[in-house]
Amino acid sequence: MRFMHLDILIAGLPRENYHERMRTIRLVVEYDGTDYCGWQIQSNGPSVQAVLEEAIRRLTGENARVRGASRTDSGVHARGQVACFSTGSEIPAERFCQALNSRLPGDVAVREAVEVCSDFDPRREARRKQYSYTIWNHPARPALARRFAWHVKLPLDVSAMEDAAERLVGTRDFASFANAECRTSGVETVRTIDRSVWVHEGARLQYLVEGRSFLYNRVRNIVGTLVDVGSGRFAPADMESILAARDRTAAGQGAPPHGLCLEWIRYG
Amino acid sequence: MRFMHLDILIAGLPRENYHERMRTIRLVVEYDGTDYCGWQIQSNGPSVQAVLEEAIRRLTGENARVRGASRTDSGVHARGQVACFSTGSEIPAERFCQALNSRLPGDVAVREAVEVCSDFDPRREARRKQYSYTIWNHPARPALARRFAWHVKLPLDVSAMEDAAERLVGTRDFASFANAECRTSGVETVRTIDRSVWVHEGARLQYLVEGRSFLYNRVRNIVGTLVDVGSGRFAPADMESILAARDRTAAGQGAPPHGLCLEWIRYG
Repeated sequence: MRFMHLDILIAGLPRENYHERMRTIRLVVEYDGTDYCGWQIQSNGPSVQAVLEEAIRRLTGENARVRGASRTDSGVHARGQVACFSTGSEIPAERFCQALNSRLPGDVAVREAVEVCSDFDPRREARRKQYSYTIWNHPARPALARRFAWHVKLPLDVSAMEDAAERLVGTRDFASFANAECRTSGVETVRTIDRSVWVHEGARLQYLVEGRSFLYNRVRNIVGTLVDVGSGRFAPADMESILAARDRTAAGQGAPPHGLCLEWIRYG
Repeated sequence: MRFMHLDILIAGLPRENYHERMRTIRLVVEYDGTDYCGWQIQSNGPSVQAVLEEAIRRLTGENARVRGASRTDSGVHARGQVACFSTGSEIPAERFCQALNSRLPGDVAVREAVEVCSDFDPRREARRKQYSYTIWNHPARPALARRFAWHVKLPLDVSAMEDAAERLVGTRDFASFANAECRTSGVETVRTIDRSVWVHEGARLQYLVEGRSFLYNRVRNIVGTLVDVGSGRFAPADMESILAARDRTAAGQGAPPHGLCLEWIRYG
């Protein structure tokens, strides 16, 4: 009787080799950030991290912690966020994509799932990231692009914006584009931008920026300032004095979150 | 006393030249059809026509009837629907765009407003229309494109689909792609397709089709059949026998509405 009871108990416990078989799964995640308070778990609303953790819990029964490469803000989108978690389940890595998608809401989708080394750090190991920022530059507001583009009514001088964008390439002190939190907490504000261009077709203007790491809110502060160049508030050459000021108030407005999208992250 | 009373009455009535001054305003309308039962007013849910008529009523106080060029189905989108209405108001035509947009929900927007002749008929006078149909061809479902693309998981042979699409160009009897309503009500099923191509980039396949007029559900029935070519159910050359059959059951599946978008309509 005692032995039978023990057998049942053991069957209900993790197998002995459970922890030896823990694997780390890396996900590429796409999401429409409109209805989320951002990537990171917050007390004030649903987060992408929370819905992923809930889907993993429903799939594996495990309370896994999902770590993301970029803490995208409320309303910001991603086509290629990278995240990872540890699991003791025996589900093949490539099956996680389909299995998690059937347990996630429609506005979050896993595009890829692969097994990586257990010490993989999605944030620190990122070698290059691309963000896009989309503007709808037309007197009439957009309907189809309303969740994904900042509506700027006044006509913008795109060539001035292209000129200004080019001037940001290189290793520079971006303190003027950093929010107060960065500056007061002693975060290093010298970063490198590898690419900074505008692409445009009709009313749609898209800014693409690439670098290894980004200061919090930097892309939105850069885009707002480039729009101020496009509207004539600043000249393209003013980007030099704005950078040199190392002061947020020297730069222009911040752009709203819904135009921003984390496009991809490269490792290795 | 009697004259004063009469003056007040006249001031509250439409001016005598009211009907001489009735104008017809042509709108280009963009909408995300996800949350609508289609263009046309229906008893079972909100329609794009109804929200436009309500916005006009709130702006002008008039109960205008809005006539559209295309009766897009439930869930179908438009970037360039054309519609018109008559008004006795003195609002300059170009002001209707901004004034209506501030009274419309976010998923419907007026892109242009111009005055046209009072006998303008947006449906009959259309010279050429373009529809697009977007497919997301990837094992994982999309999140950002979920409202605007049909998710087809199995890999599709795009060159076979391109070959099949080309075979639809010209003046042909499209009875095999018409729904039962068309065939039984004696609607002319001979129509002309001027352009029929696929454009693709990564997982995104987009079918573009142009013609003067389209049978109800024809684009969705064509796209479903082209996907059946891409999956190997039909060969590209089968398009000839499908057209010759003049029978809906000879063609393939119908595609869901949310991939379809009325791109533009040309007049004159």
